[in-house]
Amino acid sequence: MQDLNQDQPGQDSLIKSFLRMVHSADGDFEAIRELTEAASDEKSLDLMIEFLERHPQAKKAFEQQICLGEVNLQALHLLPKNTLGYCYADNLITNGFSPLKADEPKNKYQYLLAHIIETHDIWHIITGCNTNILGELQLESFYVGQLYATRFWLALVAKNLLKVVIDDIEKSTQYMDAITRGWIMAKQAEPLFGIQWNLFWETPLDEVRRSFNIILPDS
Amino acid sequence: MQDLNQDQPGQDSLIKSFLRMVHSADGDFEAIRELTEAASDEKSLDLMIEFLERHPQAKKAFEQQICLGEVNLQALHLLPKNTLGYCYADNLITNGFSPLKADEPKNKYQYLLAHIIETHDIWHIITGCNTNILGELQLESFYVGQLYATRFWLALVAKNLLKVVIDDIEKSTQYMDAITRGWIMAKQAEPLFGIQWNLFWETPLDEVRRSFNIILPDS
Repeated sequence: MQDLNQDQPGQDSLIKSFLRMVHSADGDFEAIRELTEAASDEKSLDLMIEFLERHPQAKKAFEQQICLGEVNLQALHLLPKNTLGYCYADNLITNGFSPLKADEPKNKYQYLLAHIIETHDIWHIITGCNTNILGELQLESFYVGQLYATRFWLALVAKNLLKVVIDDIEKSTQYMDAITRGWIMAKQAEPLFGIQWNLFWETPLDEVRRSFNIILPDS
Repeated sequence: MQDLNQDQPGQDSLIKSFLRMVHSADGDFEAIRELTEAASDEKSLDLMIEFLERHPQAKKAFEQQICLGEVNLQALHLLPKNTLGYCYADNLITNGFSPLKADEPKNKYQYLLAHIIETHDIWHIITGCNTNILGELQLESFYVGQLYATRFWLALVAKNLLKVVIDDIEKSTQYMDAITRGWIMAKQAEPLFGIQWNLFWETPLDEVRRSFNIILPDS
């Protein structure tokens, strides 16, 4: 995260970065970075932090800047196959990814972003959202439900709907189903922000999901 | 509806009319007209018609070009207060609206649009969606579920999400709830396209809703 925007986001910069996302291939990190910046105004970040801190776990996470720290994927991959740690590591290894890392946060705004980045792939596993466009969209909708005033994730939902309007209208049902599933799951679930996930590496994934009331849709 | 676009919609004209909607006040009819035109390409209209005609009621409506015809609001307003006819008339009279009319359709494409225009305010009543922005959004989502390959209504959903990203992020929960409610209601309901609504003016609204499995959300 660079400098914060002023109280209100720049409408022009939000629309510009939104349109860049519409025209970009999925996973264009430069476009994502630009949208992150345009969506990071003080007003919405304050709203999110105030909302999240109502839950003791997130309050503690902000105070102590709880981080995942170094992750040894090879070691996690030796855990039993039903554990969170194994599933997380296996997913990253299979896709050739490394754990996402953020710069060390210096304030709450930076911690908010750093924690989201660092735990993003864990949220994929926990929510059962895979990394194709429908899984990403379901997870984006889940983030809106869990983070509340997030311009970034809601812009991604809107962007994906506009892309399907333009290019792929036959898929509208699948897209709307994904949004609805993510939204309902987020409302049923306990707040996930601020969880110290490395305490759960050895716990069966099913048990972790149950403890946070993550209810996977039937299909 | 003017001339049809070619097989694929013009990406540029769709984005241009989408952005015009983002910058317009709600209910800007010129902006809506422009989006209708940009979203009316042969490919998506054919997909919708093929989808709708799987149901005998819509097939018959397309064949016979079933229309609502002249509506006498004052007469409907004399019906018992629990009837569809009274509720429809009362809503229009209270808001100072007249029944929406479309040009006489000359082909299936024009009938598709004409029927949607003519029945729009009835769908508001049947679905219990009021005419504020949340009610409109819920109904837009309902249309996507009922019409399937509709670039127009899905673009409106995306437009409203982008507007809330820019101007009103505190309302993200209400917006996502509205989309989810409309979507779930559309999937539960029987197909509404092609219903000859004037046969139901004297039927209690609750009974009409039951007969088409319209289940109102709790809140």
